[in-house]
Amino acid sequence: MIESSGILSAANESKHLFLRAAAGVATERPPVWLMRQAGRILPQYRALRSRFPDFKAFVKTPEASAEATIQPVDELGVDAAIIFSDILVVPEAMGLDYEMIEAKGPRFPKVIENQGDVSALLSGEAAAIQLSYVYEALKITKRELADRVPLIGFAGAPWTIFAYMIEGSGSKTFSKARRMLYVEPHLSHTLLQKITDTTIAYLRGQVQAGADLLQLFDSWAGELPPAHYRAFAVPYLRQICEALPDVPKTIFAKGAWFALEDIADLPCQVIGLDWNITPEFAKQATGGKKVLQGNLDPCTLYADAATIKKETKKMLNAFGGHHIVNLGHGVYPDTPLDGVRVFVETVKE
Amino acid sequence: MIESSGILSAANESKHLFLRAAAGVATERPPVWLMRQAGRILPQYRALRSRFPDFKAFVKTPEASAEATIQPVDELGVDAAIIFSDILVVPEAMGLDYEMIEAKGPRFPKVIENQGDVSALLSGEAAAIQLSYVYEALKITKRELADRVPLIGFAGAPWTIFAYMIEGSGSKTFSKARRMLYVEPHLSHTLLQKITDTTIAYLRGQVQAGADLLQLFDSWAGELPPAHYRAFAVPYLRQICEALPDVPKTIFAKGAWFALEDIADLPCQVIGLDWNITPEFAKQATGGKKVLQGNLDPCTLYADAATIKKETKKMLNAFGGHHIVNLGHGVYPDTPLDGVRVFVETVKE
Repeated sequence: MIESSGILSAANESKHLFLRAAAGVATERPPVWLMRQAGRILPQYRALRSRFPDFKAFVKTPEASAEATIQPVDELGVDAAIIFSDILVVPEAMGLDYEMIEAKGPRFPKVIENQGDVSALLSGEAAAIQLSYVYEALKITKRELADRVPLIGFAGAPWTIFAYMIEGSGSKTFSKARRMLYVEPHLSHTLLQKITDTTIAYLRGQVQAGADLLQLFDSWAGELPPAHYRAFAVPYLRQICEALPDVPKTIFAKGAWFALEDIADLPCQVIGLDWNITPEFAKQATGGKKVLQGNLDPCTLYADAATIKKETKKMLNAFGGHHIVNLGHGVYPDTPLDGVRVFVETVKE
Repeated sequence: MIESSGILSAANESKHLFLRAAAGVATERPPVWLMRQAGRILPQYRALRSRFPDFKAFVKTPEASAEATIQPVDELGVDAAIIFSDILVVPEAMGLDYEMIEAKGPRFPKVIENQGDVSALLSGEAAAIQLSYVYEALKITKRELADRVPLIGFAGAPWTIFAYMIEGSGSKTFSKARRMLYVEPHLSHTLLQKITDTTIAYLRGQVQAGADLLQLFDSWAGELPPAHYRAFAVPYLRQICEALPDVPKTIFAKGAWFALEDIADLPCQVIGLDWNITPEFAKQATGGKKVLQGNLDPCTLYADAATIKKETKKMLNAFGGHHIVNLGHGVYPDTPLDGVRVFVETVKE
């Protein structure tokens, strides 16, 4: 099922359900974790967060990041930890500072508008070297986890990082970023390449610091028409996958149902699915070439325990046992912790 | 190709390209119009808008609404007019007031939270009767258009109106509205039925006032998992389609690629497509049962004339001549007027 025999043999020997499943090896039950499991759903996270004046100070303190990363392993018994960080540390390391505005999201005071702006950005190792606080957080986490569960490293996919760098914030349409692809295709490729070079250096650093698997988040994949996703997103995902042959990789391209076949051709092992995609559609589009991850609607966890159990079992059956259980999106911050527990426990039963 | 022989025979006799195409009759060239063509892209719209203190005062002045409706017909030569209004007039008529905040979007000071809130809402004719200013605008427009082009009436689809009524504004996830479907399914159906009853009465009034075709906008369709779209959206779309047998109807469910087969089974004539959906996918999913409308990426119109022409022709070829040309979303307010012109003229050549 997977391309790299190195990954397969390492996974076969792994004691971890999550790594075996990610490598396409049959497991006694599917592993489970949640995107954004380290976060506001946990009271201990909120307590930890309150010790910092702002989100960025928190993210840049390796001990705190490690603590947040481990909290859901202790509290929820999930089968993997994911390093507590943010995809926007990459544009920041390249020279584009951002602010995280409480309850609103990120904002970049300055955005990329022209060739001069792109040229001024750092890239590759010169940028990634500034992210040593993430590597430090990974090392601390790895030590403190003491091999209880594997540790996931991550980065934003180049198109998604590009979208933030042009748009300057979240957006309903990302029309400025999408406009750039039509109006300045050459400059767009130059910027995407700089982001890609930085991401590769950054993810290499994460692997060296102990990440067992890497996930790429293409949060705004669904904003692109299929032809643009193929031209401006897929080639950079490919470069990243090819540059990191030694660990399993997951691509989660939210909204990109139309690109599942292209993604299935990349040298990654796992494809993350949002809650719009039925397991049947995903299996057909990926032709059984990849392990699938997902994809319960995060809003299910607001329901009563019986409904959560029923919907989780329905999803497990639809995937047919061979998959990595997750939600179809990051868990929403106001989700009741009990709902999350029922979800995890239903899978573990 | 379509279900209602009454619509077909009326369309056959129509002098209007748009109505013939909507009824599935072959036309010498595909008709073209743009979602949000009456709006900020036109300098004469901005001049008209500046005469009103706020958006709602504008929308509630029938003469102004008629003028805005006709502007793009004069200026761009599109093949249909769409009444200038807003989908949120329906919740307002039901008793839920909204504000339109410049450059941000709508906000409802009060939202629907419980059974009492739902019970307090007006519905059906009792609500729709308050929308006489829209009927009046349609009548004026119809008279002033003097049969140059057909006039499209519209409403929000019940799920999308529901989403605004629960959420209180636009949202990145609409998680409050989606939560309601899991936590209070019965109350959700009660509210959806009240919205549906109001929408049917409202659209009947629009047809009586002169609307030649009706379009339902399901802007937040793509937020629902397929099973919920089938349970909470499709049945209400069906009720609306069945209640209005005498005019052609278009359903534009943005992001609902997964529901195309279900929508193709409804008694509507046209299906609007967003820019994520390839013509090939849409044709296969709808089985040739409906006329397709769409779906150029609105960001294409930011490009130079040569690129716009190339992309428009590519789309025309992919649909194979038999379709209603539009963008895959409303035209973005900062789109250069020249780009819009190139788009329309390329189709008309």
